[in-house]
Formats: sequence, C-alpha cells, structure tokens
Amino acid sequence: MDQINKGWFSEISEFWPGNSFSLQVEQVLHHEKTQYQDILVFKSKTFGNVLVLDGVIQATERDEFAYQEMIAHPALFAHPNPKKVLVVGGGDGGVLREVVKHDCVESVTLCEIDKGVIDASRKYLPNMAVGFDHPKVTLFIGDGLEFMRQRKGEFDVIITDSSDPIGPAQGLFERAYYELLKEALAEGGILCSQAESLWLHLDTVKGLTTFCKELFPVVEYAYTSIPSYPGGSIGLLICSKSNTSCKSPIRQVSSEILEKMQYYNEQVHKASFVLPQFASKQLNL
Amino acid sequence: MDQINKGWFSEISEFWPGNSFSLQVEQVLHHEKTQYQDILVFKSKTFGNVLVLDGVIQATERDEFAYQEMIAHPALFAHPNPKKVLVVGGGDGGVLREVVKHDCVESVTLCEIDKGVIDASRKYLPNMAVGFDHPKVTLFIGDGLEFMRQRKGEFDVIITDSSDPIGPAQGLFERAYYELLKEALAEGGILCSQAESLWLHLDTVKGLTTFCKELFPVVEYAYTSIPSYPGGSIGLLICSKSNTSCKSPIRQVSSEILEKMQYYNEQVHKASFVLPQFASKQLNL
Repeated sequence: MDQINKGWFSEISEFWPGNSFSLQVEQVLHHEKTQYQDILVFKSKTFGNVLVLDGVIQATERDEFAYQEMIAHPALFAHPNPKKVLVVGGGDGGVLREVVKHDCVESVTLCEIDKGVIDASRKYLPNMAVGFDHPKVTLFIGDGLEFMRQRKGEFDVIITDSSDPIGPAQGLFERAYYELLKEALAEGGILCSQAESLWLHLDTVKGLTTFCKELFPVVEYAYTSIPSYPGGSIGLLICSKSNTSCKSPIRQVSSEILEKMQYYNEQVHKASFVLPQFASKQLNL
Repeated sequence: MDQINKGWFSEISEFWPGNSFSLQVEQVLHHEKTQYQDILVFKSKTFGNVLVLDGVIQATERDEFAYQEMIAHPALFAHPNPKKVLVVGGGDGGVLREVVKHDCVESVTLCEIDKGVIDASRKYLPNMAVGFDHPKVTLFIGDGLEFMRQRKGEFDVIITDSSDPIGPAQGLFERAYYELLKEALAEGGILCSQAESLWLHLDTVKGLTTFCKELFPVVEYAYTSIPSYPGGSIGLLICSKSNTSCKSPIRQVSSEILEKMQYYNEQVHKASFVLPQFASKQLNL
C-alpha cells in the first residue's frame, strides 16, 4: 500500500509489521520535509485534521484528548505541588494545553526539535496549538537531550511527548536520556513518557522499565485507549524520584478542572495503571 | 479500497466510516457464502489466522483472548454460583473455552445461527474451537431469538457474542431481544453482550443502556482493549436481575484459574468498568 491511495491514508511501518490503520482523506492541507522529518497534515473525513510525522499519525482532532490528557494529568496529579514543568517534544501544543489546566503550575517549558511541527500545528490544529499562547509557556527550539544536559534538579514534572524510537526521537528511548531526566528532575520529581503499546511493543516496554527500575524508586506503566494509534492504545511510562506510587491522584480533582476533561477523571487515573494479565506478568508491574 | 488489495485485507464499513484496520494476508484459507453471511478465513502475516464475517474481523489468533475472556469472566465472576450458561452466537467456540474454566458451571448451551462459522473455526481456529469439545457443552444450530422464546427462568448467565447490528445479528441489539433475555434468565441472572465501541458507536451504546435500564435493576458497561477491533477496543453491556453491581468479582479468582488467563484478573475486572469521562457523562454510568 502507498501512503495515500485511492483517497485513504495508510500507516505502514516496520515498527508494527503486518497491521495498519487507515483514514479517509478529504484534503491534504500541508506537506513538507524539514531537516528532521516529513510533516503531513490532512483533513480526514471523520477524524478531523490529522498530523502525520514520517508517515506515522501523531494526533487527530477527534481523539487527541485521550493521549494529551493521559500523558499529562496522572503525572501532574501524582505530584503534591508541581510548579515547574518541562515538555520534551509535543510540538503540536496539546500537552501544554493540558498542563496549564493546573493552577499550581507556574511555568512550562516546551523543548521541540522541529519548529516545522509547531508552525503546522498553529495553522491546522488550533485546538491543540492553543497551548502555546498561554502566558506561563516558554518555547525552546532544540534537541531535548542537549537541553536536559544543562538542567539539574529543576523540574517537578517532565513529560516526554515523542514520536516512535525510529527517526529523530530514537535517543528519547535510551537509558542515557532517562539518566538526564533523573538529573533534571527536582527532588520528588515525576516523569511521564510516551511508551509505545503493550500489544505491539512489549519488548520495548520491558526494556524501558528494566533500566528505569535501576534509576528510580517508583516505575509504573499506564495506558490509554485511542483509536488512531497503532493497536488502538498507547502506553505511558511514569517514574518518580520519591517513594510514592503515582497510581492515584494525591491532589483533589476539583469539579472546575474535571469540567475541562474529556478523558481523565480520578477513576480513570487509577484504572489506567491496571494492565492486562499478560502484560502485568511480563513486565512484573 | 477493495477488501483484499495488494496482499492486505482491509475492513471497510459504513458502520465506522472513514477509518479502517488492515492486516497483511499470507494466504486465504477459506471463503464461502452461507445462507446467512460471507465467511472468510485467512492466515495473516502477524496476527495468526483471522475469521471474517461479512467483511468484518471477528477474531484473530493473536488477540482474541482479550475479547473472549472479557465477555465471559466479569459476568461469570459477578454471579455467586453460575451453573447453567447460554452463549448466543460465538460460533468460533472461544467463549465456550472461557466459560468451562469455571468448575461450578454444569452446562453450557451454544446457540449459533450459522453452522458454517463453527465448521470453519473447527478447521482453522482450533485454539478457539476447542471449546466445542468440552463434555459440558451442548450445541444448538438456530436463531437465538427463536431459541430464547422457549426458555423461561433457565440460565444463570447469558452471553451474547454477536457480530455488529447490520446483517444476521441486527435483532440482537433490539429491545425485544433484551426482553427475551430477561425472561430466559433465572432469578439473579446476569447477561453480558458484545456492545460496540465507546469511540465509534456511543449513540448505539446509549440506546442499548437506555432501554436496558427500564428492564434491569443493574445496567453496567465495561470495555476491553483489542487491536483488531474497530478503534482498538470493544464494549460489553452487563445487566443483572439482582441488585448487586457486577463491577467486582464476588467469587475468588483462584490461582488455578488465573493461571489460565491472558487478559483477565481481578483488577482488570474492576478497571474495565471505568469509562473515559466523555463516555461516563454521556451514558450516565
């Protein structure tokens, strides 16, 4: 299958061989090759506008909230008082939109390697890029690993919203990156990273959790349902420098903030850490 | 897209317009048109053998356990002592395989309208069709609604493992069928039915839960992650004639039975009833 064929975009990758998700295309809105990757934005027939990087769907307007809310809120609600937050990747702005829902957060820095993603999102994904316009947000265009090397004990929560470990995000799945994350986190700091699929990449997840257990006292794994990601779900790796589990919110999920949620609530937080028996056994989590 | 094109099978349906899941085909093993539907079985490249009815994937060897375990065990473990079980549909045998894991079950009847499904499964899906060979199992080839009309107060648990509400299974999504289910259930009886996707068919789910609330004191909804179903998840409608919620197992999940599980465990049971905020609000569940 070609990537757009007879009006359908199909996501083919050797990272999930033999299966593919397709969306019907109404109109290609944007296509460019930046220094880092191929950026495609199209208007789909039933999933709204869709952002694609190197042939892989990153976000659709219809279901992006599931991912953005779940990569942000479990980590933030598991921290007693997150003031300083860093987002690595996340150039669409959706995670920023979620982080600033927490009034206690004083500043959010976003470190995105490819300005092209930000520009495309500002133009075609306004409901996600709205995150960039918040006064608490600072933007840094550059390499996440480089950025992190200069930060020590600085952030309460670090969210790594990356693409898959092939292409520009490869380094973000390696032990060296998690050592930098540990250094950059303040005391009691918590990280949450996009961590692939239990169904399709259990070995990758096992690798991540194994070295993280050597670095952090708390290593946990959650996942969220999301139709437009491979296999219909995406995993989230959460590690804490404190000894407190992140499986429950430790701050109140107020009715004001709940009003702004489409996916997250307190029960969803807890349930997202419950893994199917095969994964629970394999990961020892 | 044609259904098999350049070596890929694609699931196109007006029931989930604009999105499609595809599997790479190694070999078509079986294709027939029965009186009721089109039956296709193919060997996929990475999901094992795949059963397709009227163009829609019913089961793949790689992930079928998620569905079979979750349509069976929450209902069975929510019942204090299920002795007599009925399965409507489920002609692949996978649900039978799960039901007979419960030693307290004395008999299971399977009522499948299309013998062609059973024959194809016996030949190409032996790990599911193994359910047919259990001494507690009785097979009835015929219409589920007809069968049910003659049964009053008979079954402790009734599982409706149907295809989608277009084609031969349409009647199984209507109020009249749930009235028959209520009659056929014994006192304190519990039903569990395949009930589509929160992401793709929230209106259908809303319709089902609305009339079920008029029929049963307990109406609940769970879902399971499963890559090969549309949107990567499938919902399960659970209703009880007793006043006890089905959200937790009320019998012990012994280590012997847990050994046989790939998806289900006690925590998964509870978590499966926790719905994303948008669905929880919409369904009022």
